[in-house]
Amino acid sequence: MTADLSPNALTPGPTPAVRHIRLTSHSGGLDARTISWGASTAAERGPVIGTTSRRSDRNVIGTHSGSYSVYRALAVAAGALSREHRADLTNTAPTDVIGPYPQWADPDAIVSLDPWGAMTAEAFADDLAAGRDIRPTIAVTKAHVALPEIAEAIAKGRLKPDGRFLLESGAALVTKAAVEPVWHLPSVAQRFGCSEADLRRVLFEETGGMYPELVTRSDLEVFLPPIGGQTVYIFGDPHDLANPSVELTARVHDECNGSDVFGSDICTCRPYLTHAIEECILGAQRGGVGLVAYSRKEGRALGEVTKFLVYNARKRQEGGDTADQYFARTECVAGVQDMRFQELMPDVLHWLGVRKIHRLVSMSNMKYDAITGAGISVGERVNIPDDLIPDDARVEIDAKMAAGYFTPGPVPDAAELARAKGRGLDT
Amino acid sequence: MTADLSPNALTPGPTPAVRHIRLTSHSGGLDARTISWGASTAAERGPVIGTTSRRSDRNVIGTHSGSYSVYRALAVAAGALSREHRADLTNTAPTDVIGPYPQWADPDAIVSLDPWGAMTAEAFADDLAAGRDIRPTIAVTKAHVALPEIAEAIAKGRLKPDGRFLLESGAALVTKAAVEPVWHLPSVAQRFGCSEADLRRVLFEETGGMYPELVTRSDLEVFLPPIGGQTVYIFGDPHDLANPSVELTARVHDECNGSDVFGSDICTCRPYLTHAIEECILGAQRGGVGLVAYSRKEGRALGEVTKFLVYNARKRQEGGDTADQYFARTECVAGVQDMRFQELMPDVLHWLGVRKIHRLVSMSNMKYDAITGAGISVGERVNIPDDLIPDDARVEIDAKMAAGYFTPGPVPDAAELARAKGRGLDT
Repeated sequence: MTADLSPNALTPGPTPAVRHIRLTSHSGGLDARTISWGASTAAERGPVIGTTSRRSDRNVIGTHSGSYSVYRALAVAAGALSREHRADLTNTAPTDVIGPYPQWADPDAIVSLDPWGAMTAEAFADDLAAGRDIRPTIAVTKAHVALPEIAEAIAKGRLKPDGRFLLESGAALVTKAAVEPVWHLPSVAQRFGCSEADLRRVLFEETGGMYPELVTRSDLEVFLPPIGGQTVYIFGDPHDLANPSVELTARVHDECNGSDVFGSDICTCRPYLTHAIEECILGAQRGGVGLVAYSRKEGRALGEVTKFLVYNARKRQEGGDTADQYFARTECVAGVQDMRFQELMPDVLHWLGVRKIHRLVSMSNMKYDAITGAGISVGERVNIPDDLIPDDARVEIDAKMAAGYFTPGPVPDAAELARAKGRGLDT
Repeated sequence: MTADLSPNALTPGPTPAVRHIRLTSHSGGLDARTISWGASTAAERGPVIGTTSRRSDRNVIGTHSGSYSVYRALAVAAGALSREHRADLTNTAPTDVIGPYPQWADPDAIVSLDPWGAMTAEAFADDLAAGRDIRPTIAVTKAHVALPEIAEAIAKGRLKPDGRFLLESGAALVTKAAVEPVWHLPSVAQRFGCSEADLRRVLFEETGGMYPELVTRSDLEVFLPPIGGQTVYIFGDPHDLANPSVELTARVHDECNGSDVFGSDICTCRPYLTHAIEECILGAQRGGVGLVAYSRKEGRALGEVTKFLVYNARKRQEGGDTADQYFARTECVAGVQDMRFQELMPDVLHWLGVRKIHRLVSMSNMKYDAITGAGISVGERVNIPDDLIPDDARVEIDAKMAAGYFTPGPVPDAAELARAKGRGLDT
């Protein structure tokens, strides 16, 4: 067997013979398009091509759809999907054109998504006509969202339907976009203060050997990692996001399935999220615009198994579940307090053209530092109202305020932090 | 540079020198433990070891935490996490012991998770003592979940707090478990009716070259894929799940962030989920037990970008958004109608010992067929009440009923399916 497994090795003709496998290679496709990250036009930047059909066109490491590429492979293995399928993109174009904005042409501003990712069809029409299989990495659509907490806010008179941003039915009108990760490895390394070679090597080694091309193909600078992406929900006119004179209410929220979906009372995730949506609707009704950016980073990007292990360790430790041990318990299990790396988060704000957030609905100092560090100014910070904090979540919020989270009130002192406030496991 | 990047190649001593990289290799670690999938005891089965520290111990392809292994690598690259960190698992053991059940010793019953994954500390105490870095792939904890829909059911008198399963506050008491994917490749191939060699090759090729060991290391039969896992929520005593004489109400639910979290009205996902939770609580109060198994398979495992592209194509097609074109639009974009592959879903039910579901809160024929095909009997099927179906979701539910979904009422005919019922994009 030929031991050449590289998906980016040159293959003869449009449909590669798959009888031999290329493991890894140092030769790129001869006619693969170059990606000039941060170029000011789509034509100069060039398309991101992660196709698995005509492999000589590939100019990235990895493929599309994040983790779901594994399911795509299963579909091929099961005989349900043809390897040669090309997406028919008829009628799929964005409902709202986002950008281009000046930030798109700054190679340091956006390093983990493709700002041109929603414009595939128009920006790379020539490449598509030349038979290249180019897929959108961003999709923009419209939706009506009906949350029970918003219905309650209407019932209690905090929100009033206006027929434009909020309907009598309780549904809010949004533009929403799904964004897949597209990493420019040299720029991601720079963001984290390490060398590109170290980043590539550690990404390979610490995933147990994922994508050897990370280390063998330094000529391929773009990586489509198999991780979850982001979804943005916009309340009001998406173009207003780029206008710093229009009041922007925004929350950047990291996934927490246990609270966001199931309403677990151990944290403030869903209550803070629905409070932010309420603030976004109010903002839009005042003539502003609202934004929620939702990132798939379950359990501080540690994953849910680690999160549940930490819950047990917190609730069983001597002295009970206290704020002063909150971060220590995570660190014992995971080795770090947090793996969310807010350093990459502002990219999606730059994609939307955001230059100023008037009201940031977040208390996180890590998010605040990342946003302001990316050159986006922040006006007011909006904390979660006390009556929305579930009893069992007091441990978390106290620990976070003591660690530097924004609060308009007093920061809990050592005695306060040492008082057990979380439930045990037997109640 | 030595071009040997294999994470499973034999490395000298306990902490491997990382100055040279092994790309791929055919030699395993000499003292790596053997995994005998489906063996009847933990000792005979052997531990699943996906460590990235003492690599000679590895006996799998890939590593732990699914997609979040990429964030773990970022943490190392950023200098925040030591490569040598070992999880301190003090106090993290399951709050409820699940199994072992006879299904665990059937190598064909469970192929995509490790049934011993929550019992690491006790089942593999000797290996841990020998310095092997073994991590749980399952974590079991307890929680209080407070959903606004459940509070409303109480307010409307459909549910009554009992102080045991449902509190006056509106919170329901659950045992919950997070489960990471652990695939036994020979058995997964068998489940999908393809050869193991083809499965390995396609998993490698169609992901754009992820894990060459899939094709070079046929001796490694277990793969930890970088995908999302599952979470199970149990209402009542978890041990009752394995007792077919105790009434089991169950829903298997696939992630839909747009509805589950944000309440988008284009589908029935969250309303059906919260209805299932209500049925689970009622079931527990009747002396039964309830179960929701939640799988991270966004947008039918096509991912959210594809899902939003399909929304646009549906709503812009000639004639409007009709049920008779519902599946066709997905197929145009994605090449298939669905990539969720319910074939793997029953594994989690076998892990819990389930032999009979008395009330299945799902109309999906794919889920029903997978469950009954796995030898689990199903009594009643519970459809979503009509008044919980959002207007814009009528397209989906009609299309599904016509395609074979269970319904106690009439199946929509061709004329009905051709009537546009979905909103356009401009309203």
